[in-house]
Amino acid sequence: MLLRLNHVALAVPDIEAAAATYRETLGASVSQAEALPEHGVTVVFVELENTKVELLEPLGDTSPIAAFLAKNPKGGMHHICYEVADIVAARDHLVASGMRVLGNGEPRIGAHGKPVLFLHPGDVHGTLTELQQV
Amino acid sequence: MLLRLNHVALAVPDIEAAAATYRETLGASVSQAEALPEHGVTVVFVELENTKVELLEPLGDTSPIAAFLAKNPKGGMHHICYEVADIVAARDHLVASGMRVLGNGEPRIGAHGKPVLFLHPGDVHGTLTELQQV
Repeated sequence: MLLRLNHVALAVPDIEAAAATYRETLGASVSQAEALPEHGVTVVFVELENTKVELLEPLGDTSPIAAFLAKNPKGGMHHICYEVADIVAARDHLVASGMRVLGNGEPRIGAHGKPVLFLHPGDVHGTLTELQQV
Repeated sequence: MLLRLNHVALAVPDIEAAAATYRETLGASVSQAEALPEHGVTVVFVELENTKVELLEPLGDTSPIAAFLAKNPKGGMHHICYEVADIVAARDHLVASGMRVLGNGEPRIGAHGKPVLFLHPGDVHGTLTELQQV
């Protein structure tokens, strides 16, 4: 079911500072910061040869990463996202296997314009896991 | 400097249970567990189309992931590893930029038989970051 690793998301308290570290110190190809108010984050993409890392800074009062940064004020690894061919089939299989899908259980359109869902980290050995339809 | 994402490492308290989740529930290609006593971990590789995820369980009394699991008993995202062309040149550049290399500052041979180093997470916005020479 899991195909490519789509991205690894790192929460950071200051996205411009983090972008500068990846661009200037680590020598990576780094996008401009993009505000996604409907997702409650500002995002920067670190483009690697085979996948990407997403830097996420909270945006707005109800950001989904605010609690994580309150607990990890310096930032840290927030979630991992895998691609699947069919998000509804994946969801049905995983729910039948006893996994919990966050939210109302239905895939929603994610930050890349494709259907996504998040699995409860307690069902994936502590790692917040996103699935995205290719 | 950063080339491919080599792996994402997830610490887990029970590697056989985690391997079963990735193999049977998430439908991934998963290796047999391999004990690496010189690195203080048992490792399972989850092979994706473009990279791999490593599941790590502590091995022995001085495992480098024991403290992480004591703080995150259900497991969680432990570190991210990028490939670089020349680990010594990378180290020299990063140290000159003010980053701290863990341990004695010298690259050592990692779990894949290649030279690696770890950057202090406090210098990489909270994420423990490994570099591996290709």
